Amino acid sequence: MEFQALLKRRTIRKFSQKPVEKADITAMIEAARCASCASNRQRLRYIGVVSPEKVAAILPHTFYAALVKPRRTPVPGETSPTAFLAVTATEKPTPHLYADAGAAIQSIEFAAWERGIGCCWLGSFVPDQVAALVDFPDPERLIYLVALGYPAESPVSEDIPAAGDPKYYLDAQDVLHVPKFTAEALLTWL
Amino acid sequence: MEFQALLKRRTIRKFSQKPVEKADITAMIEAARCASCASNRQRLRYIGVVSPEKVAAILPHTFYAALVKPRRTPVPGETSPTAFLAVTATEKPTPHLYADAGAAIQSIEFAAWERGIGCCWLGSFVPDQVAALVDFPDPERLIYLVALGYPAESPVSEDIPAAGDPKYYLDAQDVLHVPKFTAEALLTWL
Repeated sequence: MEFQALLKRRTIRKFSQKPVEKADITAMIEAARCASCASNRQRLRYIGVVSPEKVAAILPHTFYAALVKPRRTPVPGETSPTAFLAVTATEKPTPHLYADAGAAIQSIEFAAWERGIGCCWLGSFVPDQVAALVDFPDPERLIYLVALGYPAESPVSEDIPAAGDPKYYLDAQDVLHVPKFTAEALLTWL
Repeated sequence: MEFQALLKRRTIRKFSQKPVEKADITAMIEAARCASCASNRQRLRYIGVVSPEKVAAILPHTFYAALVKPRRTPVPGETSPTAFLAVTATEKPTPHLYADAGAAIQSIEFAAWERGIGCCWLGSFVPDQVAALVDFPDPERLIYLVALGYPAESPVSEDIPAAGDPKYYLDAQDVLHVPKFTAEALLTWL
């Protein structure tokens, strides 16, 4: 898919129950492994969770879009993700390693969207519980989860000026609106 | 450009002296503003530095690819970047805000490469000196620089297994080789 079309990607929090295939997740990691990282050290590893039992067990320990809660909390078996990707670090994470994770996850999101799959990048979950469920030894090194599934919603973005309010909101038709600052609002010159 | 072709992008540290235009940098920020960010808070701002005098003044305070130094340190006026993009935060940066920066910079790199422009994402620079040069009040909130320019080198990546060594290296023809772990080396299943 054209990169410019991929920029229309949005975070998804309502999913159809069509399963995400392992081959799709592998394609996401093919993108993640090409992402920029500090000194090419490649200190991120991934656990693809496709077992329906494991996905269902992880779900209650994950939290979605506090600002529009409770309407965007996935309903198990109805709008819930059908897979998770756990993003882990090979060492105690530093701010630069979090930045590496951001670069990798952004690449994952593009590769997913190219295949028709939506993502919700999750920083809010119960690390101890999720680490135990994915058999990962160190909750501190389990830095992010990505919820995966085919979209069952179509959020829209809208441009706002520098003085605008970036809070997202649901309209009366249950459509999520995502205000985004314009480039002009974000960029100055020297 | 097709996203899959953009995955062949590599970090560039030797640049031709053709200038990067403001319109190209604006296009990069058009990509960055669509990147995922925590709670849609959009706490990153950008300073595009295109003034040749400012770019030259910043250069001595930036550090490139410690592992292959000194051969990949840009030579002023010969292989140096022709622009910088400063990535700043609207508040004291947390690890999650570093992750936001990673997602935004990865998007910037794709948008640059699509336009034939190479990037070197820099975490290593003298914050006080660079902040003063870009008229930014708080060095702690100046979190990254991106060096920009048209490529004057063609680094190559090569696949390595889980037990491989990710150190990059220059060959006898001055080509930078960038070992990357395969998806199989990075991904396990549940």
